[in-house]
Amino acid sequence: MSLAPWRSAIARALHQNRSLVYARYLQLATVQANGRPANRTVVFRGFLEDTNQLKFITDIRSEKAHQIKQHPWAEVCWYFPNTREQFRINGCLSLLSEDDSQIELEQVRITTWQDLSDAARLQFAWPHPGKPRTEQEQAAFEPPPPNPSQPLPNFCLLLLDPVQVDHLELRGQPQNRWLYSRDDQQGWSSQEINP
Amino acid sequence: MSLAPWRSAIARALHQNRSLVYARYLQLATVQANGRPANRTVVFRGFLEDTNQLKFITDIRSEKAHQIKQHPWAEVCWYFPNTREQFRINGCLSLLSEDDSQIELEQVRITTWQDLSDAARLQFAWPHPGKPRTEQEQAAFEPPPPNPSQPLPNFCLLLLDPVQVDHLELRGQPQNRWLYSRDDQQGWSSQEINP
Repeated sequence: MSLAPWRSAIARALHQNRSLVYARYLQLATVQANGRPANRTVVFRGFLEDTNQLKFITDIRSEKAHQIKQHPWAEVCWYFPNTREQFRINGCLSLLSEDDSQIELEQVRITTWQDLSDAARLQFAWPHPGKPRTEQEQAAFEPPPPNPSQPLPNFCLLLLDPVQVDHLELRGQPQNRWLYSRDDQQGWSSQEINP
Repeated sequence: MSLAPWRSAIARALHQNRSLVYARYLQLATVQANGRPANRTVVFRGFLEDTNQLKFITDIRSEKAHQIKQHPWAEVCWYFPNTREQFRINGCLSLLSEDDSQIELEQVRITTWQDLSDAARLQFAWPHPGKPRTEQEQAAFEPPPPNPSQPLPNFCLLLLDPVQVDHLELRGQPQNRWLYSRDDQQGWSSQEINP
């Protein structure tokens, strides 16, 4: 498949903001079981090879994993401070856990785990996220380092398959904004819209 | 009323990140009419006096205004780069337009307009946001400056009344996370939870 037309804008933004580690942080909105939105920061882990899907990671024990199983639609909001531009990417999420039978994606899950820092891997060996923190459990936050080759069972790969991308440049005169939409044949169209 | 217990943590984060203009930018997630989430960057405009409500502004013509009328629940995600901490604030939004009869809030709407920069006010005189951009309309992006004393009719005040705040400090050892919840009597409780 071919790169979507908004990919070059993302690549340029990543390059021009590479001095800021947090330019790879973005906010992922999902919908809770009660219909209310949820929103949290996640780290962009690159695109899935030969696709336009964004890669993230998460813990199967997290609330977001439960939300995604029930309601896979999401919108990420990605603001780049140096270039003052925003991408809003709406699409459908796939949660890939150890149990999934898609062999090709299981290999991606394994290499994503292997590419993590030791500190990032260690978090998956911590106690259950979101549960009350107890004094007794304090030692559990200093577990032995997990195997760097083999992901822990609770480690999930999270893929966002975009269907719409809204790109806003605040630095334009006045500003510039484009809306990219995917059609049923997986083709992309774009339109310049008012900021 | 008294300040909620999470207010001091927000005040400290704002102070310690004051060198970054974008530390006042945060991401607002809402739910669209089709049940999918939406997410965009907004600018924090302070707290409504004597309340714990966060102030934002928006254009009544924006998609977000339509979404909020149908579905007022929201979650903002606020990441502070200098201190590496995140606040997730879940609550209910109120959209205050010119037509609203709440005299006290109409005065807040007016002073919020007056406190804006000229450039920020000018955006409310631009063509309809999100509509296709046309060559013919180009001049419409250089309108005469609106009256700095009297808000344009499409200018709205947006208030977020929090019911839950999730505060995560990435710099802790290992990390620190607190969950603040509002009860039916408008009191706040807090609990330390696992990151």
